[in-house]
Amino acid sequence: MRIDGLQYANWSEKIFRQLREGRVDAVHVTIAYHETFRETVLNFEQWNRWFETYGDLIMKGTSARDIDVARDTNRTAIFFGFQNPSPMEDDIGLIEILHTLGARFMQLTYNNQSLLASGCYEAEDTGITRMGKQVIKEMNRVGLVVDMSHSADRSTIEAADVSERPIAITHANPFEWSPALRNKKDDVLRAVTQNGGMIGFSLYPHHLKDKSACTLQSFCEMVARAADTYGVTHLGIGSDLCQDQPDSVVEWMRTGRWSKEIDFGEGSAASPGFPEMPSWFQDNRDFGTIEAGLRDVGMNADEVAAIMGGNWYRFFDENFGASVP
Amino acid sequence: MRIDGLQYANWSEKIFRQLREGRVDAVHVTIAYHETFRETVLNFEQWNRWFETYGDLIMKGTSARDIDVARDTNRTAIFFGFQNPSPMEDDIGLIEILHTLGARFMQLTYNNQSLLASGCYEAEDTGITRMGKQVIKEMNRVGLVVDMSHSADRSTIEAADVSERPIAITHANPFEWSPALRNKKDDVLRAVTQNGGMIGFSLYPHHLKDKSACTLQSFCEMVARAADTYGVTHLGIGSDLCQDQPDSVVEWMRTGRWSKEIDFGEGSAASPGFPEMPSWFQDNRDFGTIEAGLRDVGMNADEVAAIMGGNWYRFFDENFGASVP
Repeated sequence: MRIDGLQYANWSEKIFRQLREGRVDAVHVTIAYHETFRETVLNFEQWNRWFETYGDLIMKGTSARDIDVARDTNRTAIFFGFQNPSPMEDDIGLIEILHTLGARFMQLTYNNQSLLASGCYEAEDTGITRMGKQVIKEMNRVGLVVDMSHSADRSTIEAADVSERPIAITHANPFEWSPALRNKKDDVLRAVTQNGGMIGFSLYPHHLKDKSACTLQSFCEMVARAADTYGVTHLGIGSDLCQDQPDSVVEWMRTGRWSKEIDFGEGSAASPGFPEMPSWFQDNRDFGTIEAGLRDVGMNADEVAAIMGGNWYRFFDENFGASVP
Repeated sequence: MRIDGLQYANWSEKIFRQLREGRVDAVHVTIAYHETFRETVLNFEQWNRWFETYGDLIMKGTSARDIDVARDTNRTAIFFGFQNPSPMEDDIGLIEILHTLGARFMQLTYNNQSLLASGCYEAEDTGITRMGKQVIKEMNRVGLVVDMSHSADRSTIEAADVSERPIAITHANPFEWSPALRNKKDDVLRAVTQNGGMIGFSLYPHHLKDKSACTLQSFCEMVARAADTYGVTHLGIGSDLCQDQPDSVVEWMRTGRWSKEIDFGEGSAASPGFPEMPSWFQDNRDFGTIEAGLRDVGMNADEVAAIMGGNWYRFFDENFGASVP
């Protein structure tokens, strides 16, 4: 089973076919960065059109069982998430509405302070806000997973603590391996995994050691070390694949409508666009390469299967439904 | 089994308890008259709060099977509908979104011309518009029932013809029995029922012979005659009960934001408010009275059971899911 914990591709029939070629059974796709509620609904609408048009390649996923249906019918199940809480605006009632529409992950922040928590680019990390605590409780109730991929350290550790259900970092790597602002320090990874949560390892070059030049072996050795440290059952892939996106999209991701000045995020004035993906992971057809790479660094078949999809399957199964009162 | 095809009460714990006292297994409730999409979402949110707070009395209904669950757990299943297409605004993609949120009926018009069809108060009835035809097709696809309760005659007959799935008049009576503008002429009732559709008989005084003074016997004789004429399988109740609503609400229903002048609709300057309900149908505890009244005019037990809920159950079962391609 192959499940990818995060992608934000410029979706097309070509990519849907590559998902099938790569035997990707399920993928969590971002459908909002800075969108309002109504704009996010337009993105749900766009996906409904794709499900109707490409019903032989993809299907909407809302529970782990849909992954079984997708496998049985040779399709990829698409699960929705947001990289910012902007779709819920300032209205806690929208959490259940968005879950009903299919949202299954929501980051409490993107890079900036939100109404709920601090983003990893803020100078001050003030932790989970008053509203943030209420929102985590409501997300726990309906089965919308707290994702802290872009949040600051204290906020993430507090979220793992406040949340009564496991949380996720869908796409990031250990800071120790590659000291990027977006990567996660040991205490953060411990707080998330000890709470039953998941880490999805990112293939976005800014999160990789040596960026685009990162070797498959270095990536796989990092995964194997993380399995030793945090336990293999808490690990998966969250490729952060942004295939075929124009550079205007990375500008939108970084700057939204919050600034009139350009913010280069993990990039720089010299290279403001999307970075080149590593040669061994260009698109969805390359998951087999990672699978082989993990075996090559000494992980056994069960461990590799868990990381490539089994762990995300279990996590989806346990965390996408309403909490039992 | 007791199913009511339309209510717009000022919902409260009191009314939820009366639904249980009256053994109402399911009710189709109006959650939008003139609301935009975002305003309608607020109404879905309000109902989510009620489902959470009064989970021992009510539950959300999306398919006929939920009525069985409600009966088994001594609750009432609440199904949602709109008396105007305003929640979908000018965006055909919102039809599936609203269906996903739980909408199961949508009127193509309230009393006025809409983007889709003509309302029964317009001087000209131009039938189903270009957009209306597209919308009916999409409603058929997702399983959102076309309701023509407030639409003009030609529009209704055309809708019954254009729609590939049965349509409904959830709340109205035969014009022949009570010649109100909102009641339906023979050719309209034939078009709807011959297409497999349903008629819900209204207890709203403006739709009754002699209005608030209408007798139970006269109402039940009308139902029995309709069963002879159109076939008992196409008939149900759609009480149009607007319990505990202040008169400001009937003003909103009639005038929305489309006029600065008051429109009295079925009322008049002399009696602009909600009319007094007939003595024998004051609230949800009185469905047994209608049941007994139908037996008293000679209908047999099977016929009465079909009208009180069996027919709506079958109709819900056949028309709330996606069409089979």
